[in-house]
Amino acid sequence: MKDKTFLMIPGPTPVPESVLLSMAKHPIGHRSTEFSAVLKRVYEDMKLLFQTKNDVLVFTASGTGAMEAAIFNLVNPGDKVLSLVIGNFGERWAKISEMKGAVVTRYTVDPGCAIDPAEVKKILDADVNKEYKIVTLTHNETATGVTNDVESIVKIIREHGALSVVDGVTSLGALPCKMDEWGIDVLISGSQKGFMIPPGLSFLAASERAIKVSEECANPSFYFNWKQNRKSVLDASTAWTPAVNLFVALDTALQMMKEEGLENIWARHARIASAIRAGVKAIGLELLVKDEKVASNAITAVLPPEGISVPDIRKTIKKDFDIVVANGQKELKDKIFRIGNLGFVSDRDAITAIGSLEASLYKLGYKFELGAGVAAVIKTLAEKA
Amino acid sequence: MKDKTFLMIPGPTPVPESVLLSMAKHPIGHRSTEFSAVLKRVYEDMKLLFQTKNDVLVFTASGTGAMEAAIFNLVNPGDKVLSLVIGNFGERWAKISEMKGAVVTRYTVDPGCAIDPAEVKKILDADVNKEYKIVTLTHNETATGVTNDVESIVKIIREHGALSVVDGVTSLGALPCKMDEWGIDVLISGSQKGFMIPPGLSFLAASERAIKVSEECANPSFYFNWKQNRKSVLDASTAWTPAVNLFVALDTALQMMKEEGLENIWARHARIASAIRAGVKAIGLELLVKDEKVASNAITAVLPPEGISVPDIRKTIKKDFDIVVANGQKELKDKIFRIGNLGFVSDRDAITAIGSLEASLYKLGYKFELGAGVAAVIKTLAEKA
Repeated sequence: MKDKTFLMIPGPTPVPESVLLSMAKHPIGHRSTEFSAVLKRVYEDMKLLFQTKNDVLVFTASGTGAMEAAIFNLVNPGDKVLSLVIGNFGERWAKISEMKGAVVTRYTVDPGCAIDPAEVKKILDADVNKEYKIVTLTHNETATGVTNDVESIVKIIREHGALSVVDGVTSLGALPCKMDEWGIDVLISGSQKGFMIPPGLSFLAASERAIKVSEECANPSFYFNWKQNRKSVLDASTAWTPAVNLFVALDTALQMMKEEGLENIWARHARIASAIRAGVKAIGLELLVKDEKVASNAITAVLPPEGISVPDIRKTIKKDFDIVVANGQKELKDKIFRIGNLGFVSDRDAITAIGSLEASLYKLGYKFELGAGVAAVIKTLAEKA
Repeated sequence: MKDKTFLMIPGPTPVPESVLLSMAKHPIGHRSTEFSAVLKRVYEDMKLLFQTKNDVLVFTASGTGAMEAAIFNLVNPGDKVLSLVIGNFGERWAKISEMKGAVVTRYTVDPGCAIDPAEVKKILDADVNKEYKIVTLTHNETATGVTNDVESIVKIIREHGALSVVDGVTSLGALPCKMDEWGIDVLISGSQKGFMIPPGLSFLAASERAIKVSEECANPSFYFNWKQNRKSVLDASTAWTPAVNLFVALDTALQMMKEEGLENIWARHARIASAIRAGVKAIGLELLVKDEKVASNAITAVLPPEGISVPDIRKTIKKDFDIVVANGQKELKDKIFRIGNLGFVSDRDAITAIGSLEASLYKLGYKFELGAGVAAVIKTLAEKA
């Protein structure tokens, strides 16, 4: 059957019909008053999503573009950067920093673990000459389904004096992330995750402190230039021709998000992810993240049962039930599969996902109490309703 | 009346319904076999559009992003760049080069004029020590509606030994631009012009010579990295999460373009632009470009008649006939208006545009022989059919 595919990967994520249809309208002129009105709303609403008073820049680019926008406007060759790495996307901060000429120190933990704030404090306390200019970290690591305690870590970074640069690609619009309250210096995100629109836009907000540092940056990016893009936010315009249709889609999605309310959105993600975790465990499968306190409420990484391979599970659930779950990345490839519940995902989808996972494992010959997963999902959803 | 707006600006341009609808489908996973099949077709078809055997990189970014991709992978601080500037977009090459630390020499001509290849030869002949590493130029200057003789200029650059870096944003898919035959080293373009899809994607192809030079580039872009993005073309994948829906739209549009045939597309643009120029002149208005040989077949810049302002013309044709034409940019603001006939534009649209322009000028009190513009359009279309 065609057109039945349902994405439960950590992006792209499902997109509401009203958003798809608004995106399919004829493009409007990007210098028109109509589009300026769209931009005005989007720039305003993004502040709510970022929980900040700072301007939020919107780039026509994927999340990696916003990461480049952060680093290429801050780092000068030779600058020292500390990268806190808990997975593939934490490593990306390090690589981009090196590309701009930074001297990067990585602090890496095992896949499935979070950064212990106490360890960060130790490292930064040891940096008595305050050589670290920037500390990069990931809020919600897409590769492993771990959520870092950004609030505590950023507080420590601030006490040291370095700038905190945080990847909120799979956290914004899904998990609480409070830029101003937590004191984050640079926060970035992407459209195809909690924002319920297709990939193609990414976002960046910077604190006054960070903006000051950016003014001393040699050879920054032109396309991702902070100064040029900030000027455009003030004018309710964009520096370059934007992906007009994606901005219109974003505008539609942000109105939906405001109607639901941020707190409700966060609670929904927490409820559905808890239900998925409970379901997975009830089937007898192991979670990659052992410490439930740091388990992501947007992405759940699952180990396959012995004797059944990740590719077989992914193939079966796709072929028989039209659900796409993600493989692991790099060294985690074929070792885990990842179920996303980012954005436009409802309680019903948790039942669907675990029910279809049960059916797929049943077909692949795994022995377990059929229905136990769905039962655990239903109970958890009811408890957290 | 809602939903009647018709864009005759030089981008975004009108998008066919089938393209809009293909774009409105639910996003598919960007690492799926389905999407890989889309990418395979797109990467192959883009070679036809670029008239090259080189791989064409596709970025989720606007045209300026592809310009950054060109310069940031080639220029080292201190490198000498010659920028041939015939308008706002030619100047952008110079600015991006300076951002990466290049020492830029500008050769600038008056708005509405093209670069004389003989002048380029003089400048490059005088560079006996071969200090210019790169020469930037614009094929079709969007700001003025002038088309440079890229073939002759690139030949001269090649004889000197510098790399030619060409902006084909409003020429590819509209005017003949033959990368390999003309010996262009780096050619870029954007999606919202001749390609008949909304803004959000941009393209770059590089010659072997240019790729060799890029390997010596310090601190290149990470997001726009040639090496990483070239590897992805070979794998029928993308380096980062792409704007999936825009790629699907591009795939649809490229099939339409192949059906029409490149030669026919070029002839259509030439025919319609000739008709628009003839219509404008028959109404008694002046063209910015005096030398018809360098007049763009994608964009026509028109001076308003005495006593009638550009804003009044733009407002009237928008309000009464739902047609959007562009103002001039920067120093040309309110001095010209620009009519685009890029991409999904038919003979009928030339009649519509000039007829509506006549009606708007009539309303604004301009004295002329009513119907003369449309008559000239009809005759020119018939002659060139």
